[in-house]
Amino acid sequence: MKAQAGTIVIIGAGKVATALAQSLSAGRKIVQVYSHSAAHAKELGNVLKCAYTNDLKKIIPTADIYIIAVKDDAIEKVASILRLKDKTVVHTSGSVDVKVLKKVSDNYGVLYPLQTFSAGGKLKAEVPFCIEASGSVVKKQLSALVKELGGKAYDINSGQRAQLHLAAVFANNFTNHIFAAAYNLMTEAGMPFDILLPLIEETIRKLKKTNPALNQTGPAVRNDRETIKKHTQLLKNNPQYLALYQLMTKSIQQTSRYAAKKF
Amino acid sequence: MKAQAGTIVIIGAGKVATALAQSLSAGRKIVQVYSHSAAHAKELGNVLKCAYTNDLKKIIPTADIYIIAVKDDAIEKVASILRLKDKTVVHTSGSVDVKVLKKVSDNYGVLYPLQTFSAGGKLKAEVPFCIEASGSVVKKQLSALVKELGGKAYDINSGQRAQLHLAAVFANNFTNHIFAAAYNLMTEAGMPFDILLPLIEETIRKLKKTNPALNQTGPAVRNDRETIKKHTQLLKNNPQYLALYQLMTKSIQQTSRYAAKKF
Repeated sequence: MKAQAGTIVIIGAGKVATALAQSLSAGRKIVQVYSHSAAHAKELGNVLKCAYTNDLKKIIPTADIYIIAVKDDAIEKVASILRLKDKTVVHTSGSVDVKVLKKVSDNYGVLYPLQTFSAGGKLKAEVPFCIEASGSVVKKQLSALVKELGGKAYDINSGQRAQLHLAAVFANNFTNHIFAAAYNLMTEAGMPFDILLPLIEETIRKLKKTNPALNQTGPAVRNDRETIKKHTQLLKNNPQYLALYQLMTKSIQQTSRYAAKKF
Repeated sequence: MKAQAGTIVIIGAGKVATALAQSLSAGRKIVQVYSHSAAHAKELGNVLKCAYTNDLKKIIPTADIYIIAVKDDAIEKVASILRLKDKTVVHTSGSVDVKVLKKVSDNYGVLYPLQTFSAGGKLKAEVPFCIEASGSVVKKQLSALVKELGGKAYDINSGQRAQLHLAAVFANNFTNHIFAAAYNLMTEAGMPFDILLPLIEETIRKLKKTNPALNQTGPAVRNDRETIKKHTQLLKNNPQYLALYQLMTKSIQQTSRYAAKKF
């Protein structure tokens, strides 16, 4: 099988692989998909109308771009088997160093979309993509891919990307957990969570304008001990939320003391 | 001075008092404002073109509704001095029990707007108001006020309101602090916080549809030890954020174990 110019092999058949594959423009030919699961490989291959395999040694060696979108801890294993000379090989991980691809090809990089994917979910418009490239050719290819995908490219090196991934865990996963706690506190007392939504939207609106530390409100930053005491009392039978409350309160006060010292 | 039907006295001249006063419809006459600061009383009185005082004993006794919008810990002091028989007296606090107003009047209640107010800020459209009333007359009056203010009324008793206030601290203040941490992590590594905004908006969008616990993603809920180890390593010189990371991770895993057991 001879690969066309701009042809792509997708390695992986999970949420990210599927979303990327389905969002690539019609002009771009996906020639093969790989999954370690034969069933998943076949399924995605059929959707994309392309070849599929569950054997890394049967990856077509003549495509132009190889996108490795497997689980973070499987990237190294994939990289240890693939040998693609000077083909462009990229992974899509937020937390894996670009260097793991050095042995696979002379031309390598990262194409990391900052989006939470659900099963069957597609790529959203203007998704930020962190790109990193071993050289100008790969960089050009990745910029073109991001453009085709309707995303927004940011040049982010591996050190930055690791920190970005950490920041995203705070901004996304941790806040979601806090929202879940608020949801439970509301439900527990027979109130609809909806009451809190306008307040949450206001917090997000302000977030877009300035450093959130400057918008900090609430009993912790005011050092309103009476209210903190009441809240602590309300949580006395909930050690999980009490621990969150106490640490968050301490941390807010720590930041505000630091800010007071600094400015 | 004879008060008109539907007349209001505003006790307090802070952010909440000012926003409520300025948002009340023209049909509603504010006859007096009070602040413990003579200057603030005069300033708001001039804006509203009404009488003002800094002496609780000079509060006009003949208005229809008295809105106490002073700091939480000052409400009790105000209530210990005011005696208004059967006039409607309400406070605007999220965390103070309605009962503190029992001695002030036979008709009392709470009118608690769930909005973070900035100085000079106005009331937003469709702000949720938690209302609580000693009886049906007060309840009718408060419902009418909320309608005039363009808000949305929820019947919330004092026990619920205490829990709501706690939930709002989680949903608003704690998440803001977490966003501030993410902001710092980004800035520290020379990246614009904007990269994270689409992800944050996606989290909020999902939040509106379902219990956030069902949307939990990230290394903690996946028990992705490698990534957690990397993140912990990145935070080794930042004990404040490390403590947040570790507790949040533990708490997410606790919730997910609980959910797994339950369903």
